[in-house]
Amino acid sequence: MSLKAISSKDAASLDKDLMEIGGWSLDQLMELAGLSVSQAVYRMHPPTSGKNILVVCGPGNNGGDGLVAARHLAQYGYTPSIYYPKQGKNELYQRLKTQLTNLSVPFVDDLPVAIKSADFLVDAIFGFSFGGPLREPFPTVISQIESSTIPVLSVDAPSSWDVESGPPKQGPGSKFMPEALISLTAPKPCVKYYHGRHFLGGRFLTKSITDKYDLDLPVYPGIDQIVEVGVSGEGRL
Amino acid sequence: MSLKAISSKDAASLDKDLMEIGGWSLDQLMELAGLSVSQAVYRMHPPTSGKNILVVCGPGNNGGDGLVAARHLAQYGYTPSIYYPKQGKNELYQRLKTQLTNLSVPFVDDLPVAIKSADFLVDAIFGFSFGGPLREPFPTVISQIESSTIPVLSVDAPSSWDVESGPPKQGPGSKFMPEALISLTAPKPCVKYYHGRHFLGGRFLTKSITDKYDLDLPVYPGIDQIVEVGVSGEGRL
Repeated sequence: MSLKAISSKDAASLDKDLMEIGGWSLDQLMELAGLSVSQAVYRMHPPTSGKNILVVCGPGNNGGDGLVAARHLAQYGYTPSIYYPKQGKNELYQRLKTQLTNLSVPFVDDLPVAIKSADFLVDAIFGFSFGGPLREPFPTVISQIESSTIPVLSVDAPSSWDVESGPPKQGPGSKFMPEALISLTAPKPCVKYYHGRHFLGGRFLTKSITDKYDLDLPVYPGIDQIVEVGVSGEGRL
Repeated sequence: MSLKAISSKDAASLDKDLMEIGGWSLDQLMELAGLSVSQAVYRMHPPTSGKNILVVCGPGNNGGDGLVAARHLAQYGYTPSIYYPKQGKNELYQRLKTQLTNLSVPFVDDLPVAIKSADFLVDAIFGFSFGGPLREPFPTVISQIESSTIPVLSVDAPSSWDVESGPPKQGPGSKFMPEALISLTAPKPCVKYYHGRHFLGGRFLTKSITDKYDLDLPVYPGIDQIVEVGVSGEGRL
């Protein structure tokens, strides 16, 4: 299946439109984005395959999507844990942390130990606004994920990848190829360097938005908040 | 299945706990409540049974849940329309209206005409805080819904019913018995007067909350935001 990609600049503009013209709050958008991430995890890795989901969160909205996903995963019967080395300043992130703490979801400090006991990893470190370079602790974090054998779902983009030009040529992330990717609202250009299962999530766009940004999105089935758009391979979306 | 009911006073206290202690915003709670309503509609009345869903919204949070549900229904491929005779003041309701308008969901003025062309009706007029009496235009609204033959899903409580003591003894609502009811977070006491399909929605409580309010909730299956708790009949929940 061929899907048009949205540039990093347009993705930022689309988010702005949703909030400034569309009437959306960040709370609402993040709730639905995180919900779709949780559904992709369930599809890739149902609780019967192992309940220990490690969600690695970055300092921005990609990390917030991960926090929301972890909350839903806890409700689905998983035992998620969170690695969140650098918390962002938005008060929403603090509230999401409170919600998780109230569900007894642990925030862990030791990533290598956490990876050893996890069945599946959600990479919610960086999203469409990442252009590099990685700053500590993230080169280490990416290297640890990259060198593990745990299956990974990346949110919006494989973290460390440039959203336009894909994986770094060398260093942390240069060999990072997650088992699955969930693009939020629309695929980002770097998806053409990606091989693996590919989902789309963020079922909240309007026709005027998809027209404005010239998106050509697939139909979500039934009540699903995700749609699988096939296995992506190099050179095509 | 027997489920404990939560009193109107405790339901209000629970909502307050979620927001003041639990880290939840009204945007988040309403998003998940409305999402569960939309899933109950889909279960009761899939799009192949007719796409014209009339959502009747009251001035408070019950109406807000209806607005969110309508947005999801539009995304599922239904053609919802909204009757919203008395809009509440919270700015969130205005934003939800904007979201719906951007999806080309119409706000209609003539309830009898709207009922005639609808396949299914969502009663999102009053919820757990309603204690009567009905004030205009709602006695007329309830009478018009009550005297129609359209199948109805009520949100949290059949509107016009006292949340504790059930249907009014006479006048509008005294013969109102919707085909389905979705209780949000937990059933309200009036459910014992209710006959019909009964769903539970609002999958966001923590153990400390269910313990505090002595709730005994069923397990939600898979990733569902609703669970059907059987057909309720008089004298039992």
